[in-house]
Amino acid sequence: MTLPLTGLHVVDLCTYVAGPSACMTLAQLGADVVRIDPLGGATDTRRLPLAPGGQSLYWAGLNRGKRSIEVDLRGEGGRDVVRRLLGVPGEGHGILVTNAVGQSWLRHEELLAVRPDLIQIRIGGRADGRPAVDYTVNCEVGLPWVTGPVDASAPVNHVLPAGDLITGAHAALSVVSAERLRRATGAPQYVEINLADVAVATMAHLGFVADVVVNGSQRLREGNYLYGSYGCDFATVDARRVMVVALTNRHWNALIRLTGTADVLAAMEKALGVTFAEEEARYRYRDVISALLRPWFEQRTHAEVVASLETAKVLWGDYRTIEEMTRSSDGLLAASGLFTEVDDPALGRYPVPAPVGRPTGWTPPAPAPAPAVGADTGDVLTDWLGLPPAEIEALAADGAIRR
Amino acid sequence: MTLPLTGLHVVDLCTYVAGPSACMTLAQLGADVVRIDPLGGATDTRRLPLAPGGQSLYWAGLNRGKRSIEVDLRGEGGRDVVRRLLGVPGEGHGILVTNAVGQSWLRHEELLAVRPDLIQIRIGGRADGRPAVDYTVNCEVGLPWVTGPVDASAPVNHVLPAGDLITGAHAALSVVSAERLRRATGAPQYVEINLADVAVATMAHLGFVADVVVNGSQRLREGNYLYGSYGCDFATVDARRVMVVALTNRHWNALIRLTGTADVLAAMEKALGVTFAEEEARYRYRDVISALLRPWFEQRTHAEVVASLETAKVLWGDYRTIEEMTRSSDGLLAASGLFTEVDDPALGRYPVPAPVGRPTGWTPPAPAPAPAVGADTGDVLTDWLGLPPAEIEALAADGAIRR
Repeated sequence: MTLPLTGLHVVDLCTYVAGPSACMTLAQLGADVVRIDPLGGATDTRRLPLAPGGQSLYWAGLNRGKRSIEVDLRGEGGRDVVRRLLGVPGEGHGILVTNAVGQSWLRHEELLAVRPDLIQIRIGGRADGRPAVDYTVNCEVGLPWVTGPVDASAPVNHVLPAGDLITGAHAALSVVSAERLRRATGAPQYVEINLADVAVATMAHLGFVADVVVNGSQRLREGNYLYGSYGCDFATVDARRVMVVALTNRHWNALIRLTGTADVLAAMEKALGVTFAEEEARYRYRDVISALLRPWFEQRTHAEVVASLETAKVLWGDYRTIEEMTRSSDGLLAASGLFTEVDDPALGRYPVPAPVGRPTGWTPPAPAPAPAVGADTGDVLTDWLGLPPAEIEALAADGAIRR
Repeated sequence: MTLPLTGLHVVDLCTYVAGPSACMTLAQLGADVVRIDPLGGATDTRRLPLAPGGQSLYWAGLNRGKRSIEVDLRGEGGRDVVRRLLGVPGEGHGILVTNAVGQSWLRHEELLAVRPDLIQIRIGGRADGRPAVDYTVNCEVGLPWVTGPVDASAPVNHVLPAGDLITGAHAALSVVSAERLRRATGAPQYVEINLADVAVATMAHLGFVADVVVNGSQRLREGNYLYGSYGCDFATVDARRVMVVALTNRHWNALIRLTGTADVLAAMEKALGVTFAEEEARYRYRDVISALLRPWFEQRTHAEVVASLETAKVLWGDYRTIEEMTRSSDGLLAASGLFTEVDDPALGRYPVPAPVGRPTGWTPPAPAPAPAVGADTGDVLTDWLGLPPAEIEALAADGAIRR
């Protein structure tokens, strides 16, 4: 079967989150992705959390569906193997995704000698070349100062490396769109994506930047409220918690009808001269609204609240722990239907997700675990370069590769 | 000049963040994107923050570089206009991105009658068809219970709608990869991407899911620490704050050399029988390490700390407010070099970013503001459908479109 990226052969020379997630996404769409691992594995090969045997579950999660070739990246022999992999002729070859820094042998101009129409996506930290990771960029966009309880005195970091993940998805998009352009023009393609750029551009897309420049706004902390409309979390009598959101009039009407607050809110609207049909007004009076709604939640069990919210078609979400998300029969993992149990010889049996884009016209590759570092060295050299066993042995004997 | 997505014509029938950001990304790569707006604009057209004139800066940020056509989506006349736009013959036409729900006229099977090889990307909430937004999904993956101060008693929501933005990037990738497959096979393409799927798949990619299943782990709150390695925030004597990260040995050695803590840490390593060269050990003893490092930061001004961190090549980030990110001469916006001031006739003058992928082989479209709702109705009907003025007038007279 032809998949969307059938025929693409991607060299993945990446560590941490953004690059590996980009190439994993490409593999899920049908690309043939080969990880270049330095001898013994990259710096993140043993990153927490670890399986009982010491293997990284984090690394395994970001490198599924790829093959791994183990190469001495410090020696010319190993680098030459990488160059030969990039120089394989053919329309879908000559694609490199990397976040390696300060490696002059990986400069685009150098590699064009190997493949004149090379596609190279370079994931970096900051525009000036200085390094950055998600945690050192996030603090600079201001989000930690507007996250957390309203009375917090210190910034609160986000736990999800969102910038990494957004960068990774854009890197995958860059590969596929660059390949489209290369097919049209035959020209090489170089695209640089920096974590810091993604973070600040995101703040612009969402209106944070324009709000400062046009309005001179200073965004304040507002706890778990949803900015700009109505969204608030509520505790139930049995100490569970739900998030309730009213973005549209339909959501809002469902919520106030259910909680029996329509009359008092109408009186308030009249006295204040506003209409809560406008989300701006719901946002401005969020504290009063929440105070009016709260008793309804506090007087009911979680089960009662959930049943009523569903019946009334309120837009809501349940606060779960990561364990509940993973293990509950009604948790997000089970509800998605996206996961298949995979037997990983090193890590054990655990569920891995299919691609997030669910296609009807083609079948994604079967869920597969991540490779062991270097598991495919011989196979890849045979497949991509057509090397005979003796030549592979010679490379191994020279220390250029490890088998 | 040929751009990566030159020749693609995308119909954007989307609200909120994911879909609009997907189509804006496609426009930045050279696609011709036409927003279908219902009469008067979609439900998010006046979403906060607003400019002084009442226009949404949020909406403007997510719809730059597109054209807008204003159509009566409740009537058959307007719907027929949409169908005709989707039915334009030619390789790059017949592409729809939408998050509309419960609209039977937008079902893929119906639209195939209009364009037998239609590409349709459908952004949804949950796999079972129930609605969801970022705030109602995030609480279900467990992150709010591991975000915030260690002594917090309630969940802490993330402020950035990361799931929306990741979904949007994957939707853009779905368009481009589906178009690649359509060119290869001629077959129609339907891809569904749900916010809830993206959220739970992301938790799997990062190892959270496997950590529960394989290890039975319960992830605890750990404040601003970086999970699994060493990363901590520190206050300076003048009440500023920095985030310091040591993912690799090089980062770690730079940090302990600068702070003069190498000897005491070596004594600790010996007594504990561990080596902080392993990030697992740095993570396990993060509280002790931070207590040893803290005085160095607390005794220095922010300026002194920053200068020393830079000289020592420590991996670090500065806590800034959103205003500082936007306005400071050394803030992330200025440092990126990615922004151009744009004059928006309705909103004023403010900086907008270029695409986050910086290409060397082609020039992205000039930064442009978002269209006014319906600003391009006539132009698009002329360009795409070749309608003569009289026919456009007739559609307007019938109420199918607004001019």
